[in-house]
Amino acid sequence: MSNLNFLIVGTSISATKYEGKTRHFKHVIDEPETLGGKDEAANPVEYILAGYAGCLNVVYNLIAKEIGIEIYELNISINGDINPEKFLGLSNKNRAGFQSLNVHIELETNGTHEQEQQLIAKAKDRCPVNDNLANPTPIKYLITQPLSRN
Amino acid sequence: MSNLNFLIVGTSISATKYEGKTRHFKHVIDEPETLGGKDEAANPVEYILAGYAGCLNVVYNLIAKEIGIEIYELNISINGDINPEKFLGLSNKNRAGFQSLNVHIELETNGTHEQEQQLIAKAKDRCPVNDNLANPTPIKYLITQPLSRN
Repeated sequence: MSNLNFLIVGTSISATKYEGKTRHFKHVIDEPETLGGKDEAANPVEYILAGYAGCLNVVYNLIAKEIGIEIYELNISINGDINPEKFLGLSNKNRAGFQSLNVHIELETNGTHEQEQQLIAKAKDRCPVNDNLANPTPIKYLITQPLSRN
Repeated sequence: MSNLNFLIVGTSISATKYEGKTRHFKHVIDEPETLGGKDEAANPVEYILAGYAGCLNVVYNLIAKEIGIEIYELNISINGDINPEKFLGLSNKNRAGFQSLNVHIELETNGTHEQEQQLIAKAKDRCPVNDNLANPTPIKYLITQPLSRN
């Protein structure tokens, strides 16, 4: 199968607020007041948690179908700690991002214990967001002047 | 400074739709019809792009202020390719997630070229989401029965 490309295009509205679009969906991102924003929307790292949880949902359901079991209930919560010192330029002692992530999945299916274990292992392996968070991803930067100024 | 904890709590609404909350913000995530969903919201990996773009905005503005330059315009677009074969269980040839990410930043400031180069380098280094995507993050899974069933 050929690759799928995903894209966001957007602009800085303020020092903390970004508005962007992916296809026909609008995203607004801000920071809470404690981090200098106006708390108009979830903050960047909360978006990461949302994408991760949403991805696990898709993959759990896909694989349950493959295994032939039915999911009765699936709750997904994810949390992680960030030490803000590197982000704020105060210290390089800790990494900038989440130090680790804790995924809590509440799962009820009509499958056996073995089928559920198979589901859990496969989902972790095949979840795109899990991959990008657990493993390094090459990132290329292109910095230009705004088009209107060229 | 002490760590900040970020948390999402939510549940599977359908095989592709997840609804969750971070603080007082609601997140709905779905898949496009081509990926089996009803396209009611952006998909998981689009949330990742949104979080990353939003994070770069915050860090660019924070560091510009430190350096003492003003940002006149900042547009951030990010894209990446995913090969869906591993996600779909068809092949292990490619990784599950984004193979790489392309960040395009259109920047105009009142700073010198050197100040802008400093801004760009520092932002990459101090952006929490950049860190979690570029580098591995430990992930712990806890799987339980739904609370109502305990």
